[in-house]
Amino acid sequence: MNETSTKIKIGIQGYPGSFHQEAARKYYGGDIEVVPSATFAELINQVASNGDCDEVVMAIENSIAGSILPNYKLLEKSPLRITGEVYLKINHHLLGVPGTQLEEIREVHSHPMAILQTTAFFENHPQIRLVESVDTALSAKKVAESGNKHLSAIASQAAAELYELDIIAKNIETVPNNYTRFLVLSKSDKDISHADKASILFELPNTPGSLAQVLSTIHEGSINISKIQSVPMVLEEWRYTFHLDLEYSSIEQYELVMKQLNRICKNLQVLGIYKSGEK
Amino acid sequence: MNETSTKIKIGIQGYPGSFHQEAARKYYGGDIEVVPSATFAELINQVASNGDCDEVVMAIENSIAGSILPNYKLLEKSPLRITGEVYLKINHHLLGVPGTQLEEIREVHSHPMAILQTTAFFENHPQIRLVESVDTALSAKKVAESGNKHLSAIASQAAAELYELDIIAKNIETVPNNYTRFLVLSKSDKDISHADKASILFELPNTPGSLAQVLSTIHEGSINISKIQSVPMVLEEWRYTFHLDLEYSSIEQYELVMKQLNRICKNLQVLGIYKSGEK
Repeated sequence: MNETSTKIKIGIQGYPGSFHQEAARKYYGGDIEVVPSATFAELINQVASNGDCDEVVMAIENSIAGSILPNYKLLEKSPLRITGEVYLKINHHLLGVPGTQLEEIREVHSHPMAILQTTAFFENHPQIRLVESVDTALSAKKVAESGNKHLSAIASQAAAELYELDIIAKNIETVPNNYTRFLVLSKSDKDISHADKASILFELPNTPGSLAQVLSTIHEGSINISKIQSVPMVLEEWRYTFHLDLEYSSIEQYELVMKQLNRICKNLQVLGIYKSGEK
Repeated sequence: MNETSTKIKIGIQGYPGSFHQEAARKYYGGDIEVVPSATFAELINQVASNGDCDEVVMAIENSIAGSILPNYKLLEKSPLRITGEVYLKINHHLLGVPGTQLEEIREVHSHPMAILQTTAFFENHPQIRLVESVDTALSAKKVAESGNKHLSAIASQAAAELYELDIIAKNIETVPNNYTRFLVLSKSDKDISHADKASILFELPNTPGSLAQVLSTIHEGSINISKIQSVPMVLEEWRYTFHLDLEYSSIEQYELVMKQLNRICKNLQVLGIYKSGEK
């Protein structure tokens, strides 16, 4: 029997060793097969139309950088359902080939977001030139392949282990409270008996005050709004689709509020109902 | 008399020939001196602390890609005032060295956003490899310097003129209704007798329904909300600062609503009062 064939296949964007892989491991436990892909659009397609992967883990917002708008747009077009979420604390490390000393490093490669989140560290080491790349884990891979002690990468613990690099400096992020929220996307809804959160989207009629009315309706129905995000509508400039995350303690209250929203909002959709992740 | 010394100096991010330069020209008319800079943070610093430029034009949102969150964060920390806005239609062109035919092109360089907005065109020309760069205008400059007919750039009309490149294909954007809104930032407030718009920001108390209350107050005060954007607070994860753009027809109504908001919101601030731009 081929053991790998029984593992659930989880699509992630980017390369092995990325924060997406760490998030998938945290959500599913270790026993998964990670399917890397260049883009989320490709992953969603893979789940929806063939068996290359079973589910997708996709970053949706970061506590410092905010919402990842292109991924909100993918959700709007995707046939997949949100069936879970996971929060991951982001720790950035400076990685080098084994035996490298900090003083030897002349160049660091990483994703622009990782560079942005570690600027304070590099201000104290002005001899290190910052070079933007497309992926944290890929940068780690390239440093490992180079064998060059003047090169380094900003990447995750998982990348250090995978590419057998030394952690030259640990937790170099400027702001320590750096979390990313990831969504779990599946082909169909799952058991929602333990669910307490729903992600919905809608458009508003051209009536002044309609957003105020929506929010009041939700508040009066004793439902908590944990997130509100407006996403531009591509074909109608300066009009928005609204994405809301709702936290409920009773499914009956949630369903009652949704009935009321259906009368106020246009094209109200539920993207998924799921158990909220631990923050 | 040195004529250039009388021109108003406008800071823009990026290189001459960028969309920022086009926006500045549209707002001020042609008679300005453009001061390019690598980052907005640097520009804001220049206006605030020395005379290198008088005002700054900064992109804040795009009708397709949405809000530029890092620039919202800069506004929160900046001592500058919003004194105007300008909307620019974004047209992307394929530029090559003079005499280039479309069939000769093998590689196109541009900013990832410009590449994203022109994917449909390049799907029909699969022989052209897409290469990401840091700036549209800089890509045009490099193509001009190379003199190589296999290279091209996606950039503006202004870049084509400045670097004397041919427009090989005009308006190659996938979605035609592509607008960017730019803010004008100045050291101090200007005459607001013709103003009809205000940009404000605030935090909310930890009370459920407080955003609903804020929006209802504004709506009942006959003020229109043209934009609402939540921006993550860096040191408190999953808490947000709210940025609102308010359009008013009477300054008295606006001032009355602001008095009411002061009682509901925390740290209410006005970033500027200005005349709304033509969409």
